[in-house]
Amino acid sequence: MKLASLGEDAIVARLTRGIAPGAGVRIGIGDDCAVVGGKRDAVWRLLKTDALVEGIHFLPDSPAPWIGWKAMARPVSDMAAMGGLPEYALVTIAIAPEAEMKRLQGIYSGIKRAARRFGVKVAGGEMSRSPGPLFLSIALTGTVERERCVTRAGGRAGDFLYVTGRLGGSLKGRHLRFVPRVEEARWLTESFSIRAMMDLSDGLGSDLPRLAKAGGAGFRIDRLPCASGCSARQAISDGEDYELLFALRPKDGPRLEAAWKERFPRLKLTRIGQLTPRGQTHLARGHDHFAQPR
Amino acid sequence: MKLASLGEDAIVARLTRGIAPGAGVRIGIGDDCAVVGGKRDAVWRLLKTDALVEGIHFLPDSPAPWIGWKAMARPVSDMAAMGGLPEYALVTIAIAPEAEMKRLQGIYSGIKRAARRFGVKVAGGEMSRSPGPLFLSIALTGTVERERCVTRAGGRAGDFLYVTGRLGGSLKGRHLRFVPRVEEARWLTESFSIRAMMDLSDGLGSDLPRLAKAGGAGFRIDRLPCASGCSARQAISDGEDYELLFALRPKDGPRLEAAWKERFPRLKLTRIGQLTPRGQTHLARGHDHFAQPR
Repeated sequence: MKLASLGEDAIVARLTRGIAPGAGVRIGIGDDCAVVGGKRDAVWRLLKTDALVEGIHFLPDSPAPWIGWKAMARPVSDMAAMGGLPEYALVTIAIAPEAEMKRLQGIYSGIKRAARRFGVKVAGGEMSRSPGPLFLSIALTGTVERERCVTRAGGRAGDFLYVTGRLGGSLKGRHLRFVPRVEEARWLTESFSIRAMMDLSDGLGSDLPRLAKAGGAGFRIDRLPCASGCSARQAISDGEDYELLFALRPKDGPRLEAAWKERFPRLKLTRIGQLTPRGQTHLARGHDHFAQPR
Repeated sequence: MKLASLGEDAIVARLTRGIAPGAGVRIGIGDDCAVVGGKRDAVWRLLKTDALVEGIHFLPDSPAPWIGWKAMARPVSDMAAMGGLPEYALVTIAIAPEAEMKRLQGIYSGIKRAARRFGVKVAGGEMSRSPGPLFLSIALTGTVERERCVTRAGGRAGDFLYVTGRLGGSLKGRHLRFVPRVEEARWLTESFSIRAMMDLSDGLGSDLPRLAKAGGAGFRIDRLPCASGCSARQAISDGEDYELLFALRPKDGPRLEAAWKERFPRLKLTRIGQLTPRGQTHLARGHDHFAQPR
């Protein structure tokens, strides 16, 4: 059977069958990051790898420094989504011998800039020849206080659903230049009991059903923060927004909304809807394609 | 300037210029693994990524389970070379949508087998489409007792040089099916003061000059443990031996050689030569290509 005829989730489920989580693995396959550490450790470690493939995640003419920025920013965004902070990075590049040194240096300058911005220490890496497209992968370790670690799975029916920023249209450039919501996520987990959180990488239409399902819930969408010039459809399915999606007990809603405006006056926060009892997924008018997440 | 006209070491040197090691990075770019931790921590953490590219590190018709085995065994071998043990792994695969699920499952079965054998817990990973060759990367964390951590850089003129096993001819199959020398390396660092160590991945002809240079030394080769049917030239330059190369004070030599025979009677250990004062690199007759490591 060809991979193309299965979905990514189905492929992963088949491949990882028989992999026991193993001692020390607090959160394994299926969340934004793997979490390891002792049950009672005050600080847990986060592990994440994220890869960019030329022609899929960037184009041959994408500006080299932004390719490097994106390669680092994506796993940093995943750590933010767990409530954590990045620490050490290893950089893997597979590249054609005919490639220009200048391009590689440009990519690295973007990696280094993002590393400085988010406090990541580049501790090593590896380079390989490749007869194919440029491949760039960053393995990142990080930390999160046990008390502040947020998974995708904690949401329950009734929780309010929030999204930071605006969604859709990322291919115009934001997919390369986005700023991971580290500061916002740290503030959220410090000040509030966030029940579930993830970053929107595949688009709300794919990611929200995952968050709801992980918590054994359905969901209802009331409104969407569409990026300028974007339709609701784009906001749902373009993907690569790298905004935070999170769930919060309704009673904490008013305090959060007021505090957010004070703390992040320039970043929109939208209550998009609610988690509902399992099986009761309601769609805003016109968003039928939610029924079949791509 | 094209990458092909520079060497790997020169490319890495240019790219990583300006990357300060950063707090907590005990050993950064340039050794088998990155080592992180506090100066006085009893146990340090090891970080390593290693990638296989189809057409470079394996062929389209290589048996899938052995591709997976190799992908895991290579970074495990790097951890062994530091005196450490692997702990958690993340698996990254980029693969064409037209690929067969069966092949991917075969690769994963090899990864899981190697993980069980070496006590590695697979904590997560990532999958991506690729329009090019199959790309498989494993990011591995591990641990090493500070007192037992061995780098490439500790060798000094006069030290004996040892190699485990036999060298050359790995392309006949051993490059896929090798067993990383974890047990041997752990025994060595427990029982002896190993001054410098690395695993032979690029071949003795490339790797020994690196180990000597890292310690500010030259080297002299007296003998080589050639694999059956292999010439000295092959033993030096075929690469992918994944044997241990290490340096030891001469006074410890006799005790090591006797104890090794008792502990590992079925694995050859060869004293191949000595480190010499810097600039005094002597070559066994007929190995002129040592002068120009590829």
